[in-house]
Formats: sequence, structure tokens, C-alpha cells
Amino acid sequence: MSAPTIAAVDWGTSSFRLWLLDAAGATVAERRSGDGMLTAGGEGFGPILEKHLASVEASADMPVVICGMAGARQGWIEAPYVTLPTGIDGILAGAVRVPDQPRDIRILPGLAQRRDDAPDVMRGEETQLAGILPLFVSGRHVICMPGTHSKWVEAADGTITGFATWLTGEHFSVLSKHSILRHSLGDSASPALPGNPAFVAACSEALSQGGDIGPSLFRIRAATLLQDLKPDAAAATLSGLLIGAEIASARRILKPAGDKIILVASGPLGSLYAAALKLAGCAVLHADADEAVCTGLFEAAKRLGWTARDFERPRP
Amino acid sequence: MSAPTIAAVDWGTSSFRLWLLDAAGATVAERRSGDGMLTAGGEGFGPILEKHLASVEASADMPVVICGMAGARQGWIEAPYVTLPTGIDGILAGAVRVPDQPRDIRILPGLAQRRDDAPDVMRGEETQLAGILPLFVSGRHVICMPGTHSKWVEAADGTITGFATWLTGEHFSVLSKHSILRHSLGDSASPALPGNPAFVAACSEALSQGGDIGPSLFRIRAATLLQDLKPDAAAATLSGLLIGAEIASARRILKPAGDKIILVASGPLGSLYAAALKLAGCAVLHADADEAVCTGLFEAAKRLGWTARDFERPRP
Repeated sequence: MSAPTIAAVDWGTSSFRLWLLDAAGATVAERRSGDGMLTAGGEGFGPILEKHLASVEASADMPVVICGMAGARQGWIEAPYVTLPTGIDGILAGAVRVPDQPRDIRILPGLAQRRDDAPDVMRGEETQLAGILPLFVSGRHVICMPGTHSKWVEAADGTITGFATWLTGEHFSVLSKHSILRHSLGDSASPALPGNPAFVAACSEALSQGGDIGPSLFRIRAATLLQDLKPDAAAATLSGLLIGAEIASARRILKPAGDKIILVASGPLGSLYAAALKLAGCAVLHADADEAVCTGLFEAAKRLGWTARDFERPRP
Repeated sequence: MSAPTIAAVDWGTSSFRLWLLDAAGATVAERRSGDGMLTAGGEGFGPILEKHLASVEASADMPVVICGMAGARQGWIEAPYVTLPTGIDGILAGAVRVPDQPRDIRILPGLAQRRDDAPDVMRGEETQLAGILPLFVSGRHVICMPGTHSKWVEAADGTITGFATWLTGEHFSVLSKHSILRHSLGDSASPALPGNPAFVAACSEALSQGGDIGPSLFRIRAATLLQDLKPDAAAATLSGLLIGAEIASARRILKPAGDKIILVASGPLGSLYAAALKLAGCAVLHADADEAVCTGLFEAAKRLGWTARDFERPRP
């Protein structure tokens, strides 16, 4: 295993993820924690970062590149949004150095779509985009990045030209915890598995209705009362309806050429979206989101010159 | 003012409303309280009812007719759902007497649509329907009953043939309190006024998108960040989007003949829906929901024979 050269951090609202990378971008050490922006806002971003760096024995002068909510106005230091359209270089060039730190720490900016009729912002997903540039460097592409707030991105010849956000993950969370549907879902508010029949049926229903799930949500409650719907099936139904509605809506708005979608997602959520996109008749190219963000952070480090010396030096 | 003859109660999940009516159905006294099913489940339905009856000096033998969640399984005593299709007589005939009470107390049933593909239930709205029977006694009609859970009802020649539910009111509540949109709405989560420009713009946008507001919800948050959207306008926007989406969805599914809608709603919510339905190009016949439920309860009392003697006696 090679020596770690840089630290890469994806710092979200409620999550913190750290990789130590060698000069070729390979992962030497990794750490996950719940010390997101909400925690760091109280304890301090600097002390939390140093604590995690110490836990993986990072050297005192190792530089750190960060993406995500740490760069929000309410984060550590604001890395102002880069306005669309922009290429990946435009994003990586917007990195802001955190002042008064014992080491070189840069935070990457988010993206802003400053259209009067469709304002939108992202923080974190732009770095995933930097990590998958080879997939959209030529031609027009539509990229689906599911999550708490799903982002659907339009790119042309490597330039990000537009994006839109669906609240799908958060929608599932608030409806399952705070609406009348909580009586139907109980504590079964976990993600469905892709082959779950209730998920497939609900996703297909949402797609066949062009994404209009208005009258379908309360039916989950009624099906509990009249048809003895079980909590697991209720959760899978809600998940299928919301994901199907997102895909129908995004396809109508973004009109992906040949219904080809680049899906950037990890783990069970990635499998679920891949299944749902295939139900919708889309051709899916699936990239791993964790790898994408790590690669994107490494690309930023390269442009900062942090890995240049190592690349020039012949490796043993 | 004539002597009170019967007590009529609309007993919801979180609200209790009582009217004393004379033999002709005119209101002699009225009382509102927050002693809904949730409170009554703890303190007991009987004691709460008697407390409110005492406060309006109802006689010890005055009969009481009740509609709403008091008849749910988790309510006072279950008044089993009447299955569609049904006429109003079928609903009123389903009243269940509460046993072991010092006075005659009847609870009206709710309605169930037992369709495998579209199960649905209502409790309370069926009694409003009983109160507006003259409006739909002949011909096919679509009836909009907005609220926490908006009900859209199809009726043909006085028979209820189908209905569907939109979570609009609850959706507004959970998104404004529990989602990222709470940062944009702040404490301004009050209903918009019908002429509010942000409400009109958002409702028109939702209608022009055929009700697809998927990418519009997060734009409220982005507009706060990029366009300095104010909390009041954010709340009006969310309200306009959700109500516009409901109307677009319901029209597509129910296809009201000549876009004529019977709207059953009271107060600010009624004005808001009337404005939204007009934006959608619908012809609106607006009935007051409070009057409708009171009239419906009186119709039930008439069929129970509780007012018959009085009608036979010539009035002074």
C-alpha cells in the first residue's frame, strides 16, 4: 500500500466521510461518522476534522480537500456557488482555502442555477460529477443522483447546463414519520428491496399515471383499514410511488435522449433506482456515488498541484 | 328563538363541534372545542360529551346525533363503514346507538370504497354530503371537499358512486414543519389569502404543469437562498403548488362534466379553493361545509323520528 498523500472529505448535513488517498488516488484509509454540519456547527469544524485525521494517523502537514455542506453559508467557511453553465474545471477552480489553519484545507463550491423560473442549488453532488466526467465528456447526457434530495443533471460535452431537485428521500421520511401514513408504516420505514412486489407494483402504478400519485398516498392508509396491508408492504408502496413519480416527472422535464440515464448512487438506494429506471424503460449506466465523490475530490487535489510531484516521481 | 330539540355533534380527530337545533333545524346554541377523538380517547367520550351538553344547558333527555371519528374503530363505538355505491338514506340508516348511556346517542357511519385498486374511506364528509343532497340529487356531479385530507366525490342522481383522497392539508403541514422547506417558511405556515400573488403564481404553475410539482418544491428553498424569497411568500407558494396539484390531478381522474365543481368548504380554506378552482377554469358552486354538516346531522335526526312530532304540530 502506498503512502497517503492527501485527505479527501465529503462533509454533509448529517454525515462526515474521510478518505486518505495516495498520489495515484487509491484509498489508503477510510472513516465514516455522523459528525455532519449539524454536529460540527456546535463543536467546531476544525477540531472535528483534526480528531478524525488523527484517528487515521494523517501527517500534520497533509492537505485536505472537502466538498459538501461544510462550504455552505451556515457551514465552516462559505465556498460561493459557481453559476451554471460550467465545466468541471470551473467547479474545481472555485475551491476556497480555510484561513488560519495548521494545514492547507480547501472547500469546493456548490452549483447554482440562477434561472428566475427555476432557481436551484447543490452542494456535494457537483464533486460526484467531477468524478464521473469521462461518462459525460462528449454528447448530451442526463444524470440521476438519488438521495434525500434527488438531483437530475443535464450535461452537454462535459458542461453542466442545468439541473432540478426532487425531495423524494425527505418526502418518504416526513410522510412515514409525521403524516397519517405513519399508522400504516409503523416502524417499517426502511428502504424497500428492488424485487419487493409492493415496490414494483407501486412504482409501475406511479409510472403509468405519469407520476401523478395524488390519490395514491392515502390509499396506503385505506388499504391498511380495508385490505389488511402490512407495514413492510406499506413502506415499499410509499417508496415505489415516490420514486416512480420522480422518474416520470424527471423524464418528462429532461427528455433524456434514447431514455439513457447515468445513475450515480451507492448501496441499496442505487439498486432500487436502477430497478425503478428499468421499470420505466430506461437504459441505465450505473456509477457508484461513493467512488464518484472520492474520485472528484482527488481530481480537485490534482488541479491544486498536491499530487503533481508524486506523479512526476517514478514509483518504486 | 325556538326550543332546542336535538343535539348535533361533528366529532373529528382533533376537534369537537356541537349545535343545539330546534325542530326545524335552526341553530339555538353552538359550541366548539379542541376535545377531539385524541382527547376523548383519554378522558372518555361520554364525560366529554355530557360536559359540553351541560355547558349549553341541554336537557337530560335530549337525543344526540354524531358524525366523524367518534365512529371509528379507535373512537367511541364503531359505526361500520357503508360501502359504495350508496344513497344518502343508506348512510343515515347506518347510525349506531351508543349502549348504556343516559340518553339516546347515535353515531353515523363513514363510507368505504372497497375497490381493490382504489380503496378509500371517509368519516364526517359523508354527513356534509347528506346536508347538500339537493345540489346533486339529479345528474352527475363532482364534489370537492378540501381539508387535511381533501375528498373528491362522484355522485350520480343522488347516489355516491366513488371518491378519492388527496393529502393536501397534511402535506402542507408536514413539509412546512418537518422538511428543509421549514427554513424557508419559518413560522409563516399560515394559509395564504386567495389574492396573494405568490399563491396565484404557484397555483397557476402547478396547473400548467398538469399538477407535476416534483421539481417545484425544492425551488422554494433555492429561491430563499438565491432570490431572497420571504417566508410569507414561501408559505403561499407551497400552498398554491399543493392545491394546484390537487385540482389538476382530481380533474384528470374525475373528469367533471363541463368542469363544474360543487365546492363544500368554509372560511379562508373555502375562499382559497374557490379562487384556485377558478384559476383552473372550473365553474364553482360553493356550499358552506359547516352548514352542510349541521344540515346533514339534522337530516339524520329527522329520519330517526326525533323531529317528527314537532313538524306535525302547527308552530305559533
